[in-house]
Amino acid sequence: MSSKHPCIKDGWFNEVSDKSFPGQAFSLKVNKILFHEKTQFQDILIFESSNYGNVLVLDGIIQVSEKDEFAYQELISHVPLYSHENPKKILVIGGGDGGVLREVVKHSCVEEATLVEIDAKVIELSKKYLPNMACSFKHPKVNVKLCDGFQFLRDVAESGTKYDVIITDSSDPEGPAEAFFQKEYFELLYKALTENGVVIAQASENVWLNLEYLKTLLNTSRSVFPVAEYCYTMLPTYTSGQLGLIACCKNPNTNLIDPCRAPTEDEQSQMRYYNNKMHSAAFVLPTWARKVLNPL
Amino acid sequence: MSSKHPCIKDGWFNEVSDKSFPGQAFSLKVNKILFHEKTQFQDILIFESSNYGNVLVLDGIIQVSEKDEFAYQELISHVPLYSHENPKKILVIGGGDGGVLREVVKHSCVEEATLVEIDAKVIELSKKYLPNMACSFKHPKVNVKLCDGFQFLRDVAESGTKYDVIITDSSDPEGPAEAFFQKEYFELLYKALTENGVVIAQASENVWLNLEYLKTLLNTSRSVFPVAEYCYTMLPTYTSGQLGLIACCKNPNTNLIDPCRAPTEDEQSQMRYYNNKMHSAAFVLPTWARKVLNPL
Repeated sequence: MSSKHPCIKDGWFNEVSDKSFPGQAFSLKVNKILFHEKTQFQDILIFESSNYGNVLVLDGIIQVSEKDEFAYQELISHVPLYSHENPKKILVIGGGDGGVLREVVKHSCVEEATLVEIDAKVIELSKKYLPNMACSFKHPKVNVKLCDGFQFLRDVAESGTKYDVIITDSSDPEGPAEAFFQKEYFELLYKALTENGVVIAQASENVWLNLEYLKTLLNTSRSVFPVAEYCYTMLPTYTSGQLGLIACCKNPNTNLIDPCRAPTEDEQSQMRYYNNKMHSAAFVLPTWARKVLNPL
Repeated sequence: MSSKHPCIKDGWFNEVSDKSFPGQAFSLKVNKILFHEKTQFQDILIFESSNYGNVLVLDGIIQVSEKDEFAYQELISHVPLYSHENPKKILVIGGGDGGVLREVVKHSCVEEATLVEIDAKVIELSKKYLPNMACSFKHPKVNVKLCDGFQFLRDVAESGTKYDVIITDSSDPEGPAEAFFQKEYFELLYKALTENGVVIAQASENVWLNLEYLKTLLNTSRSVFPVAEYCYTMLPTYTSGQLGLIACCKNPNTNLIDPCRAPTEDEQSQMRYYNNKMHSAAFVLPTWARKVLNPL
């Protein structure tokens, strides 16, 4: 394990990408590097920051910080789960840090949650360095499959297995997650869903950075699903302070924006970001973005 | 005029503040420095960035970039203006860049807009380097007063002049704008408002950075006004990607969240961020922040 990282200089981790967000950069002060290694899939860095707790970085891009991870995990999980009347069987693709699993099992109606992660190292490291996220791997409803998510969905299509909610918690399109942003992937998701199934995928962009890409991704998902909507979560450690998500449903009568279920008092008491008003507000777009993503 | 600035290194402007946002930093790539000078009030830097257009920096803190300024100007202006049934007389305190004025005069009902700016240099430079913001100084409804906003309000209190909407577009509490975050300031705002008057002030913080400070500021404003609410705008060049605002009204029946007016088609066609749904969504808070700022 190396004690240096090319993205860390003078005690600061610098997130710079000429390709994904040219001309802007975000930095976090580093107390110490906890882990750094290149696996066969990606470059994994974990450091302790001065103000954001432990931080997981894959291929130079911040994936989660302990301070603000809940804003992402809660929105990507609860938007599809509360949009479904009775979600029992859940599939999480990616998400080896365990944060989404933690949220999924808060729903008492959930009977089975399967996580498909390609990189076993991410799970192992999260258990060690992000224990508040990786707290549900031993939950009795949870299964973990160590394999490629795309291939898993192909096998699912053959076997005929169906899920009520599928959450794609992938890293960005460069690297191992590239296939998760293509039409074939949305077709596989469609096949893997029950009749009233809902799927959500992180879009790896936001309206300030790459609106045209989001439009293309939304059009791709709308070519497969009868309804697909853009929503977003707000958190400081993602570029521009927000990250887009694409939610899709198989039944055109499913209301993604005004969900059919709301958290029980017990569920709400376990949530720090999500509430029913935030759910709906997450779909409200500034005018210029709405014109591009949701023209009439 | 110097061609160097202590915040610019290796071609990047770095926004770092141990006091205001310890452990995190935002950077923009610089094409060239357009202006740098210390006036008697503050350190003014204007540079051309690679991806965000021209950028105005006061005392090391980004005030506006041409790319995303509309998200701030539109929200801080239209939230109070559409919450008022018939705003005629408007006061803008600060806002020497002219962006808020540009928004205010979009309302045909507005008869008079007064801008009070302490630093004439900011206006002069904005006309030169931010022409799309400083486009309304010559508008027939606009008056400009070059003086301290606090003193101006004291004079207004003596003279008995009243405004329908007051917008405090100040810089952050350190530096010349310090007094704008105290109880006496809110009392002066209260006195300067007509019976159905609405006021909004930038809070210089967001829920991720300093929730306790926001709670104090909100409590201060609630000790003066019958209704005060926190809302926020989202834009990449403000720390954490969002900036809080405090909206207050003198008449408890004024609805700040579901406004009594909506943009006409002509007005809406001139707006890139604001729309009625964004207005209401700007008041929706994540659970942990809602518990602190709006308990009950």
